[in-house]
Amino acid sequence: MKNPPALEQLIESLRCLPGVGPKSAQRMAYYLLQRNRKGASGLANALDIALQVVDHCKLCNTFSEQPICPLCSSEQRDKNLLCVVEMPTDLLMLENTQAYTGMYFVLMGRLSPLDGIGPKEIHLEKLIKRAQDGAFNQGPVQEVILATNYTVEGDATAHYICELLKARGIKTSRIARGMPMGGEIEYVDSGTLAQAMLERRSV
Amino acid sequence: MKNPPALEQLIESLRCLPGVGPKSAQRMAYYLLQRNRKGASGLANALDIALQVVDHCKLCNTFSEQPICPLCSSEQRDKNLLCVVEMPTDLLMLENTQAYTGMYFVLMGRLSPLDGIGPKEIHLEKLIKRAQDGAFNQGPVQEVILATNYTVEGDATAHYICELLKARGIKTSRIARGMPMGGEIEYVDSGTLAQAMLERRSV
Repeated sequence: MKNPPALEQLIESLRCLPGVGPKSAQRMAYYLLQRNRKGASGLANALDIALQVVDHCKLCNTFSEQPICPLCSSEQRDKNLLCVVEMPTDLLMLENTQAYTGMYFVLMGRLSPLDGIGPKEIHLEKLIKRAQDGAFNQGPVQEVILATNYTVEGDATAHYICELLKARGIKTSRIARGMPMGGEIEYVDSGTLAQAMLERRSV
Repeated sequence: MKNPPALEQLIESLRCLPGVGPKSAQRMAYYLLQRNRKGASGLANALDIALQVVDHCKLCNTFSEQPICPLCSSEQRDKNLLCVVEMPTDLLMLENTQAYTGMYFVLMGRLSPLDGIGPKEIHLEKLIKRAQDGAFNQGPVQEVILATNYTVEGDATAHYICELLKARGIKTSRIARGMPMGGEIEYVDSGTLAQAMLERRSV
């Protein structure tokens, strides 16, 4: 005894979503067919359109509908600074701070040998070329800022990129570690506090 | 600063899935566009096909590609027994036990006034008609077995249906409560144990 074939196929297809196992996929399929057919047809449509029009920016590698994304083609941005982030979300978060006016490079991941993600998968060759040639072949950038996450994998990725860039004589920096804004010493984790102490700066 | 429009639209559309909020939707969209474009296009396709061909069985209300599902049209099933379950999954689970050879009625939900799910949403009129007229107008069924979940909502649903059926003189039963197979008294929860004691049967 099984579900009808088209329903089984939908359940199987929903499992391509990250974090969705057999039980959630079944729940999602039932829900869509029972309570939200309009949403389901909208989703099918949005998937088709996104697959057609969304590609990567040739310069910064983020998702874009144009060959060069609006940020990279903007005249307002400082072409001498290049900030490396893991994901497009990180880029959006940094933009929201309005604390940075340079260019970006989006790795679309982080080094993670166990998941089969090596230097090629995060486009390091393209990054090196971008750092050496500049955005529009105007020569090497002045500084590369590594803004990968402070997780084990993000930090390893930053180290790896740092070595590659230093070997080519490109100035490299890493975003600061320390106490968060509004953080109280009593409640901050000891790792963060230790780093904040080690990397203290004179005032 | 935002994602490109087609990507924003995909993220918004993914939120129609149950249990998917803005952050997961963004993660899913990035994953599909970056690492699994084939899966995404398969999903769009499966959604379209399922929306076209999957509807409800006119008799038992489960998902079916035919007007009458294979189980309802089978000659092998006992037409005098009608088992009421909440979801098609529950039907599949009962079928896997091979302990029941009668017919089914799938509510496609449970009474849940807070979520706006009342008697109409779980097709109770259709159920009453089905119990009174039989599968193919051969007269009332001999017994309706209520196999909704033993959750608060599932139990309330069973009570409600029970009252409706009793008022029409139809014999109604509820699946048994008690110790699970292989259950140890030391580890079973006290509610289950209390019910097992109250509903003990002579041997």
